[in-house]
Amino acid sequence: MGGDHGPEVIIPGAAISLERHPQLKFQLVGDQKRIEAVLSSHSDLRSKSIITHTDIHIAMDDKPSQAVRRGKGSSMWMAIEAVKNGDADVVVSAGNTGALMAMAKLILRPVADVERPAIAALWPTVRSESIVLDVGANIGATAEQLCDYALMGAGMARALFHVERPTVGLLNVGVEEVKGVDEVKQAHAWLRDNDNLPINYYGFVEGDQIGQGLVDVIVVEGFAGNIALKTAEGTARQIAQYLRDAMIRSIFSKIGALMAQGGFKILREKMDPRRVNGGTFLGLNGIAVKSHGGTDPLGFASAVDLGYDMAEAGLVQRVTMDLTAFHSRLNARVAS
Amino acid sequence: MGGDHGPEVIIPGAAISLERHPQLKFQLVGDQKRIEAVLSSHSDLRSKSIITHTDIHIAMDDKPSQAVRRGKGSSMWMAIEAVKNGDADVVVSAGNTGALMAMAKLILRPVADVERPAIAALWPTVRSESIVLDVGANIGATAEQLCDYALMGAGMARALFHVERPTVGLLNVGVEEVKGVDEVKQAHAWLRDNDNLPINYYGFVEGDQIGQGLVDVIVVEGFAGNIALKTAEGTARQIAQYLRDAMIRSIFSKIGALMAQGGFKILREKMDPRRVNGGTFLGLNGIAVKSHGGTDPLGFASAVDLGYDMAEAGLVQRVTMDLTAFHSRLNARVAS
Repeated sequence: MGGDHGPEVIIPGAAISLERHPQLKFQLVGDQKRIEAVLSSHSDLRSKSIITHTDIHIAMDDKPSQAVRRGKGSSMWMAIEAVKNGDADVVVSAGNTGALMAMAKLILRPVADVERPAIAALWPTVRSESIVLDVGANIGATAEQLCDYALMGAGMARALFHVERPTVGLLNVGVEEVKGVDEVKQAHAWLRDNDNLPINYYGFVEGDQIGQGLVDVIVVEGFAGNIALKTAEGTARQIAQYLRDAMIRSIFSKIGALMAQGGFKILREKMDPRRVNGGTFLGLNGIAVKSHGGTDPLGFASAVDLGYDMAEAGLVQRVTMDLTAFHSRLNARVAS
Repeated sequence: MGGDHGPEVIIPGAAISLERHPQLKFQLVGDQKRIEAVLSSHSDLRSKSIITHTDIHIAMDDKPSQAVRRGKGSSMWMAIEAVKNGDADVVVSAGNTGALMAMAKLILRPVADVERPAIAALWPTVRSESIVLDVGANIGATAEQLCDYALMGAGMARALFHVERPTVGLLNVGVEEVKGVDEVKQAHAWLRDNDNLPINYYGFVEGDQIGQGLVDVIVVEGFAGNIALKTAEGTARQIAQYLRDAMIRSIFSKIGALMAQGGFKILREKMDPRRVNGGTFLGLNGIAVKSHGGTDPLGFASAVDLGYDMAEAGLVQRVTMDLTAFHSRLNARVAS
């Protein structure tokens, strides 16, 4: 029921994802009548879906704390509960991000003593894609939490990019000897010195290196991570605007742009946010994917694909194992 | 002597700026022989310059703390001292950022009980330019420091954009009810409720709004600010790469790109980092501008222009006045 359009986007999106992954099955949770109205024109999806009716749904502007208190029985709640009960492998929602995060944390519970689940984003790079986390689930992070993010992100990279030891970088600023990043420095030392981690630790990376695809996973606390993600989106839109303006400045530019439209099409596809739609909540006993609220069916399908790939790879089991091993080594070190 | 090229870039850069501002005078501090060798082919600049010789200079990789301890008598030190002594209005350097910051803080001293001078960057937007600070002088900031940044940035905006009450936004993340941004929330309350401030407070802005030119000044603590700046630079390079790749994919695209080269030229100029070269250290008893180390003469000239505009507008005097007034109101409120 979530997102700007509800079933009218969700269901065609699910249908696209089903074409790509015919083994998918769907549990559609929400207003039965609205769902059936759209589902009637997607017969393949209809035969692979069950509908779970509820009248209640979380509004896009509900506060997360309210949503958690009063949300029981809502479509979002029931969809997350389906994952908890083992009826579903993944929950995908285009709804209220904060509410989804809070509810997923409450219902699915964090794995392996993780204090703070994180939101991971797929970030397009000149090579392919990288995973950046945390992009806004929390503000600030301790050294241990940053290391947790590294392991969670690596689990996601393993599932999506099919590399056994993903490369991981820690986002930092370049100015030397600035004070106050003790957490980042401590995390750096742990990741560097801990040979047992199932990652290939690269070291520090700076903001301008994210888009270069230098590493599979980039770790940062959520305030700076959210600002980085939004700034990159804004810069992309800004340059697209510059480009449009520049191309209509003269008749030559206009004709040239027309002739080069195949090239511009490739550029648009490269920059299409729908290709990598979906933030993933990592660190929970279950997979929850958040699609952009304003996306279209193609974008929603990307979010479903993302959930499918992670579930198929056994992401939660692997990340739980890695985090448990890391925490016990860390505790042993502290105790000794 | 600083930057990747020293006098070979600095002096032609100063010559370009002199053409634009014939009333400029220069004190060139460094190795006399190297300076004279380049200056000989710039007769206009030569007649407007004095050379102050020194053998010592700060290397690009010297640690700031070392530079401060051992830097006395270096070209950087003497250039900053010229501002302190009133011999110069502005110091411009392409050298070691951390060393320049530390030395400028030590020699010029912060104004009006400012605890943390900040580095401000000019950020190109779809409208024109905005000022973003802090982009890396400090990590973290208290609510009072964020308000100081707002006033410093507003002073710079007044000098450069010629608006009496610049609009100011506070960079924040969009996720609701996230914890730990108490400083940002407190600064927001103070900026919103304090009618006496010489600014037009806009409220929170998010990372994707920076490039939209929504406000004249964007305030953020230095870790997230540095990451935002670097991420925007990286994203611009990444898209330029996409564009180049897309335009050589077919013969039509190549011909089209050739015809549209006027348009592409405008785009390149819009995105040219040399146009807005120069980070400014704000909150000191004097103006210090840091040019990118790897810039060319045109870029260095932009940094000199920046310093010229700020000195001409009486930036330091105005910012000192605004900060003193704000601090005394804040203290009165705390005392009452």
